[in-house]
Amino acid sequence: MIVVIKKDQDRKQVDNLINWIKGLGLGVHLSEGENSTIIGLIGDTSKVDIGLIRTLDIVESVTRVQEPYKNANRKFHPQDTIIDVGGHKFGGNHFQIIAGPCSVESERQIIEVAQAVKKAGATLLRGGAFKPRTSPYSFQGLGVDGLALLKKAKNETGMPIVTEIMSEEHIDDFDDVDVIQVGARNMQNFDLLNRLGKLKTPILLKRGLAATIEEWLMSAEYIMSEGNPNVILCERGIRTYETYTRNTLDLSAIPVLKERTHLPVIVDPSHATGISRLVKPLSLASVGAGSDGLIIEVHNDPIHALCDGAQSLRPEQFEDVVKSIDLMLPAVGKERDS
Amino acid sequence: MIVVIKKDQDRKQVDNLINWIKGLGLGVHLSEGENSTIIGLIGDTSKVDIGLIRTLDIVESVTRVQEPYKNANRKFHPQDTIIDVGGHKFGGNHFQIIAGPCSVESERQIIEVAQAVKKAGATLLRGGAFKPRTSPYSFQGLGVDGLALLKKAKNETGMPIVTEIMSEEHIDDFDDVDVIQVGARNMQNFDLLNRLGKLKTPILLKRGLAATIEEWLMSAEYIMSEGNPNVILCERGIRTYETYTRNTLDLSAIPVLKERTHLPVIVDPSHATGISRLVKPLSLASVGAGSDGLIIEVHNDPIHALCDGAQSLRPEQFEDVVKSIDLMLPAVGKERDS
Amino acid sequence: MIVVIKKDQDRKQVDNLINWIKGLGLGVHLSEGENSTIIGLIGDTSKVDIGLIRTLDIVESVTRVQEPYKNANRKFHPQDTIIDVGGHKFGGNHFQIIAGPCSVESERQIIEVAQAVKKAGATLLRGGAFKPRTSPYSFQGLGVDGLALLKKAKNETGMPIVTEIMSEEHIDDFDDVDVIQVGARNMQNFDLLNRLGKLKTPILLKRGLAATIEEWLMSAEYIMSEGNPNVILCERGIRTYETYTRNTLDLSAIPVLKERTHLPVIVDPSHATGISRLVKPLSLASVGAGSDGLIIEVHNDPIHALCDGAQSLRPEQFEDVVKSIDLMLPAVGKERDS
Amino acid sequence: MIVVIKKDQDRKQVDNLINWIKGLGLGVHLSEGENSTIIGLIGDTSKVDIGLIRTLDIVESVTRVQEPYKNANRKFHPQDTIIDVGGHKFGGNHFQIIAGPCSVESERQIIEVAQAVKKAGATLLRGGAFKPRTSPYSFQGLGVDGLALLKKAKNETGMPIVTEIMSEEHIDDFDDVDVIQVGARNMQNFDLLNRLGKLKTPILLKRGLAATIEEWLMSAEYIMSEGNPNVILCERGIRTYETYTRNTLDLSAIPVLKERTHLPVIVDPSHATGISRLVKPLSLASVGAGSDGLIIEVHNDPIHALCDGAQSLRPEQFEDVVKSIDLMLPAVGKERDS
Repeated sequence: MIVVIKKDQDRKQVDNLINWIKGLGLGVHLSEGENSTIIGLIGDTSKVDIGLIRTLDIVESVTRVQEPYKNANRKFHPQDTIIDVGGHKFGGNHFQIIAGPCSVESERQIIEVAQAVKKAGATLLRGGAFKPRTSPYSFQGLGVDGLALLKKAKNETGMPIVTEIMSEEHIDDFDDVDVIQVGARNMQNFDLLNRLGKLKTPILLKRGLAATIEEWLMSAEYIMSEGNPNVILCERGIRTYETYTRNTLDLSAIPVLKERTHLPVIVDPSHATGISRLVKPLSLASVGAGSDGLIIEVHNDPIHALCDGAQSLRPEQFEDVVKSIDLMLPAVGKERDS
Repeated sequence: MIVVIKKDQDRKQVDNLINWIKGLGLGVHLSEGENSTIIGLIGDTSKVDIGLIRTLDIVESVTRVQEPYKNANRKFHPQDTIIDVGGHKFGGNHFQIIAGPCSVESERQIIEVAQAVKKAGATLLRGGAFKPRTSPYSFQGLGVDGLALLKKAKNETGMPIVTEIMSEEHIDDFDDVDVIQVGARNMQNFDLLNRLGKLKTPILLKRGLAATIEEWLMSAEYIMSEGNPNVILCERGIRTYETYTRNTLDLSAIPVLKERTHLPVIVDPSHATGISRLVKPLSLASVGAGSDGLIIEVHNDPIHALCDGAQSLRPEQFEDVVKSIDLMLPAVGKERDS
Repeated sequence: MIVVIKKDQDRKQVDNLINWIKGLGLGVHLSEGENSTIIGLIGDTSKVDIGLIRTLDIVESVTRVQEPYKNANRKFHPQDTIIDVGGHKFGGNHFQIIAGPCSVESERQIIEVAQAVKKAGATLLRGGAFKPRTSPYSFQGLGVDGLALLKKAKNETGMPIVTEIMSEEHIDDFDDVDVIQVGARNMQNFDLLNRLGKLKTPILLKRGLAATIEEWLMSAEYIMSEGNPNVILCERGIRTYETYTRNTLDLSAIPVLKERTHLPVIVDPSHATGISRLVKPLSLASVGAGSDGLIIEVHNDPIHALCDGAQSLRPEQFEDVVKSIDLMLPAVGKERDS
Repeated sequence: MIVVIKKDQDRKQVDNLINWIKGLGLGVHLSEGENSTIIGLIGDTSKVDIGLIRTLDIVESVTRVQEPYKNANRKFHPQDTIIDVGGHKFGGNHFQIIAGPCSVESERQIIEVAQAVKKAGATLLRGGAFKPRTSPYSFQGLGVDGLALLKKAKNETGMPIVTEIMSEEHIDDFDDVDVIQVGARNMQNFDLLNRLGKLKTPILLKRGLAATIEEWLMSAEYIMSEGNPNVILCERGIRTYETYTRNTLDLSAIPVLKERTHLPVIVDPSHATGISRLVKPLSLASVGAGSDGLIIEVHNDPIHALCDGAQSLRPEQFEDVVKSIDLMLPAVGKERDS
């Protein structure tokens, strides 16, 4: 970490800062120039509060040289992490497709969708049992009953299941869930992350609605620092001024993450845009950007099928997306698991 | 709610949509023009999933006429809600100043700061016991011990205490807290909001980092719909592209909220900018915008006092801010409680 | 256009609004419900100032049913526009690659780069002569001398040239330019757009740094409404809170534009991110998203080659990108022109 | 400027960079640590392209210690710049109110509004003759005829006039304009800025829709570096995800600018929000934040008066705003000019 001190500052205040840094067990490399004094911090600065230093009156700027995350950092773990979920691998040259309905609604619905997406090429089944909803008056999901129905669909099809947790109070109910999803709104629910870090279950960590890449990796670090190395990152769109799409899918984040971390990264094109017609082009774009997989909403039920238009695809549309993905994967050196 | 159907759509799909709307117990007013068909929904549309309709292929646009929140809506509750905290009132023509350190660190620290801010004009004491931190390696607060120290400071000074909760698992520890704060990162932690709705303790609900005004009011609605009408909203800056300040304080939100809701609204100028030099001008700006109060960080301890610069003010600076506020309050027809 | 009037408004004010609308030559369809009055505007509403109506006190909301652009609108021109530049076609199933250096620096530089990128697969040559720079102290380009050098490179290689105009005062100097680029900062320089609309030269219209898709199409409409139908849109990243990349490339905009307009759409991955390592994955992502081409920075000169790192690729890296693009194009039904 | 080199980089590439820096006439201070090499640039770095260095593969980070603007920098000009417009002063402890209609429409309209706002306390008259409009089909202003009407209103009332320029081709028509406004969309129209720098007329430079504070100051620097020191900055809202207000007024920018530059700073609350009901609270908030003045839309004509609701105030509402401002000014040590 490099701290640049403003010109002509009270020497005593600079010394106070240096002593405080030394008190944290760090070394100091001082370079005094004509226009500014530069303090280099030597040692493990990951615990130093950069925000505190930045706001000091004598400080011009602070630059972190070392990233504040370790477990998630590719520098200390150059090889891709490969996460195995029931024989299906995330990371490396593997490409996985997770598919299923937005919400679990009935035994028949979830089993039929599971069979349809499996046939079309999906390897894992998604479905919401606990649903985070902006309005307290909206349907909040079937809860534990939804988890039971997912388990039935898993037994029926052999597909591992992926579903969202909203509170650490439900953690025992997620014993049989193969991948536990943390939604965008809970990306910085640190108590929940800490608790998930004590499990070994793979965690699908969605990016917060306005999270920077670094904040997202720090949330992965929360889970990993507690002992769970199995984190799959999921880009799902960020909030910008553009309102035509619900969110702006940030595909630049994929190659950036591939440089900075060894963790697998997938994309959710359904929630990013909220428009089913955009799912295919953005799925193909995700392949091009280097994604390790996709999580796609597929429905078969009459309510959502109402007018062929919600963010979910019908099974035959999903099948068409998978076929196009297969045409593209060789260009990025990946293979779809099936 | 008004749904505009695209030109030349399959009549059967339009009928499907109309029947689905009727199935929700709503009336339908149909207006068929040359270029578009318009469906007006009649009845209580607060439970209708606007997102689902918007994404249908046959739909051009959906406009909500009725706001999706009721308990928080000024239309159904024209008078300002006044929330009394230990004799100090939020709302109406009252103006409250909450002050205290970022984190509770020791008995001596919290009592000394409490005495100093009380003398300068603060009526409630803030202080963090559970601290949400981006990094798992940063200091996470003293937890329940911090709550005990806050209680000591309350006994010593008579000031009601305001402190943040991070998980519904700690709710019993907050029995003696006078105002429970929900931080920006937890604004859409719906399980937590639901639980707080079952209390009567006033809730200080901070705006999420990228929350719209409507989403914020919907989070207030979560608390209120469970039975707790005592919600104080707190603007604390939103995330934008501008990086000179940590966040962009959205003071337009104050008069907008005053129109839309009857709940009290206060401002946190310390966290919004992260720069103590900006606390005074933004406190005065908040008064001008019509805020019902402020929550300001004040410190007296040597570590933060290091170089007079963190986002916290020293007690004498805080006193100067209060004096300037007093000069401005008559222009907005408010009176500071003391 | 649909105007929803608030409940219980002064009837006289509503009548004023209706008369004002009729005064614009529009018909009115009135629907009075229990909770709101709805005014439907009938006729060509593209000239109606939606902003003015929206801000009226009696108005709850205004929804535009008809898009405010006509010439650019796919509804009135369902087939893809194909723009031919010296035999190279933009639009339809064609895929073009424009390449060249950031700035024209010398005859040798521009000719060498032109030859290299042509060999690797580029069909048009880009190069900046007039450079928009944030700082008045930065190099502003060679100006008309740069244009002359581009012309030499064109003569040498047969490649049509693409270069940026910054002011309508230079328009005569651009006589021999094959595609005139309008940069992001000038997307709403309406006097410039009007002037370019009087030419027939194809215009490469970059998206403004914070422009919505609709504003961008309205700027195309400025050019088209003056008589120049040859507009190529170019996505180049938008400004968001994320600072790791210089801008956030909005690839969702590609399929959205493909629905709304018949104009060709290309992507600039070099400026979007400012990081050359990201050019390849984002080029492939652009192909997946359905782009009609790319504009890529390539250099061969020692200053930029300094450490192999600026946003420009070296010729051999560019060649590698083109090869991967070729592997992907069949999946989206496009063919690279060569 | 401080450049941090990544660990274990090719020494030759580092030397290339050092030689390139020296070639720019700068000195180099090298500090080689165990984990990183740090290069300090010594001398005038305002012409160094920080973007180029940042994107080099060997570079970890670049930090500018010295601001890239000089003429606008308070460090080199500690006293407030006071700009005199026809005897009315901007800057220091002065507070000016500019008012007038959105567009000049007729002689009667502009003279009546001018008289009304003068009586209420405005000292300068605003009015649009050239109007930047998103749509080519919207009213574009009366152009030079509008300028003539403004001049008549000036002769009638003695008020200096403020109006927007959209192209350097009109510059001769602006000879008698007292303050030339550069709109948000043209903040980075560098050819226009250069030309305005050759005048002595005060320039009202509005902030670009998505401009950072630094970019805004760099645009002021364009004007000042050409010889015109009379720049008044005007905050008018930035584009964010929040859509309830048209833009988000960034009042934190006021005290930040007051630290960084000696130029006067005013606020436009009318365009920032687009809602006349918000003009009063945001005007008062601007006073609290330390603004040197306001520019407010006021109308008297029947079309805009339609339903009392556009972003313009009626004269009597404007008068009420001025009265409240007068109550607040003493708290910030300013005096309204009249």
